[in-house]
This record gives sequence, structure tokens and C-alpha cells, in this order.
Amino acid sequence: MSAFSDFACSIARTVDVVGEWWTLLILRDLFAGMSAYDELQRDLGIASNVLAARLQSLRENGLVERSTDPADARRWRYALTAQGRELYPVLLALMAWGDKWLAAPGRQPVLVVHQRCGQVTAAVPACSVCREPLAFEDLRFLAGPGAQAGPGTAEVGRYLGARP
Amino acid sequence: MSAFSDFACSIARTVDVVGEWWTLLILRDLFAGMSAYDELQRDLGIASNVLAARLQSLRENGLVERSTDPADARRWRYALTAQGRELYPVLLALMAWGDKWLAAPGRQPVLVVHQRCGQVTAAVPACSVCREPLAFEDLRFLAGPGAQAGPGTAEVGRYLGARP
Repeated sequence: MSAFSDFACSIARTVDVVGEWWTLLILRDLFAGMSAYDELQRDLGIASNVLAARLQSLRENGLVERSTDPADARRWRYALTAQGRELYPVLLALMAWGDKWLAAPGRQPVLVVHQRCGQVTAAVPACSVCREPLAFEDLRFLAGPGAQAGPGTAEVGRYLGARP
Repeated sequence: MSAFSDFACSIARTVDVVGEWWTLLILRDLFAGMSAYDELQRDLGIASNVLAARLQSLRENGLVERSTDPADARRWRYALTAQGRELYPVLLALMAWGDKWLAAPGRQPVLVVHQRCGQVTAAVPACSVCREPLAFEDLRFLAGPGAQAGPGTAEVGRYLGARP
């Protein structure tokens, strides 16, 4: 399945790195501030060999780093790298959709408070240039400099606008 | 693995619905405007039984609907439902991260143009209330009405602020 990393598609490449069920929940816990291996394992109820393999993969991909626990040098602590922390928009988007479509009305498991405005928020996508909300209808997708037809992208290029 | 749907976590529940490698790429192609089964299969290079199972699951979960092809009643066409279309922030977030961290510099496979401002954009998360950009440091996570300790969330609640 690691052929996903070879697809000329940034969604496929990202899914190759984070798109394993447990991986996103490990990242969730690291975002929450959890760092100890044992606690991650207890929280997720995950087999130790699976957790170890996922953390190893996240380290190899540069999303997670580990250090020795200052209180006990025999134990590892795990934390997000800068590259890993930049995945928070993915987790917020997954959470917003799940809150809307998969939680009972008014029964979100977690509330997100935006401390600058003080309100319970949900992430919505905005334009990195003009900062206005990004409605899907306002987007146009063009073949980029790295576009190529190939595995995972054999046909979809015909649906993209030409590169300007 | 479908126990993910029982976790009191909107990330886990969403991953349970869309978190299979191929599923996100099927959604990507439907967002691009592809609709024919054969074309999806050719584009992704996916085994027919896998594609059929993924589309069936997406239909059962209310993300995709199918109809007969008006040009050939023996063929099915697939399209996103309103619920499925609301996943575009997830795909944009995966794409933005992959463009930044997994594509060679200046070699994005696809450019996203925001037609309202006319610029090549990347999605950034904004607050649904005040519309300002959402920096991770400005967020606080509180136990919500649907919070519960259990599988997949046995410990993480201790890292959440108390419900207001």
C-alpha cells in the first residue's frame, strides 16, 4: 500500500503517512498533550506492537520525536515535531465533520474554544491569500507543476483545468 | 476495526467512515467530477471488488449516492451527497499539508485557485464564529456533552479542560 507515496497527489501522499486508523488517534493524543508510551497505550487500548510500529513510522516520517523521560531515563516520551503540529487542520476538519454528522445533536464529545473570541468554534476552511471563507463552489483545480498521469491519477487530470 | 465508530471521539468516528486509504481518493475523484465506475477504477488502479466495497460503504454511510447512467441504463453513476460534499475541508487540509511537506518545492501536483480573489490558495483553518485564522495555540479543548471515558478515549479526558 506504500505505493500511495508515489502517486502524484498530495492527498494520497499524506494519507500514506497519516492514513492508518490508529495513527490519527495517536496524533490526537499527542496534540492533547499526552507523551508517555504507557498512557497512549492505555488510552487507545491498542496492542503494544501496533503502537510501537505506528510511533516508529511517525518518527521516520518526521512527524514525531522522542526523548528520554527526565523522571525515568528508561522511558521514552513522544512529542510532535513542527511538521507534525502542522497537521492540526486535518484533525480539526475531521472533528468538525464528525461532530456534525456522526454525533447526536448537541452531544459533541469535545468542545473547541477559540480563546481569542471566547466562543465554541468549529474549523472552517479559509483562503490563505484573501482570508475569506473557502466555499467549494469557488474553487477551481488546475494541473500543477508536479502533475502527472500515473498510478492513482491515471484519469483525474482530464477533470483539471489547464495550468495557467 | 469498526469499533472506532463506538469511540466517544469525532475524529475516530470520522476515520471509521472515511479513513481507509482508497476511500479518500474515491472521494477526491468524485469531487473532481468523475462519476463512472469504470473510470474510477482506471484512475485509481484499484481492484474491482475493493472499489465496489468502498462505494457500497460510502453509500451505506450516506456520503455517496448512485443513479443509472442516462446514456446507458446498465451502468451506474456515483455522486457525492450533501453530507459527502461537506468533507471537502478534510481533503483540502490533507492536500495543503502534502503540498508543503511531501511535494518537492514548487512541484504541487494540483493548484487550487480561489476564484473570488483569483489567487492560488491553500486552505487554512478559520474560526466559524469570528472568522479569524485558527492558530493551534489559541484553542482550548473542553470535555463536551458527549464526552465519555471508554475505548479509544480511556485517558485523554484528563487532558481536556472541564466543561463550562
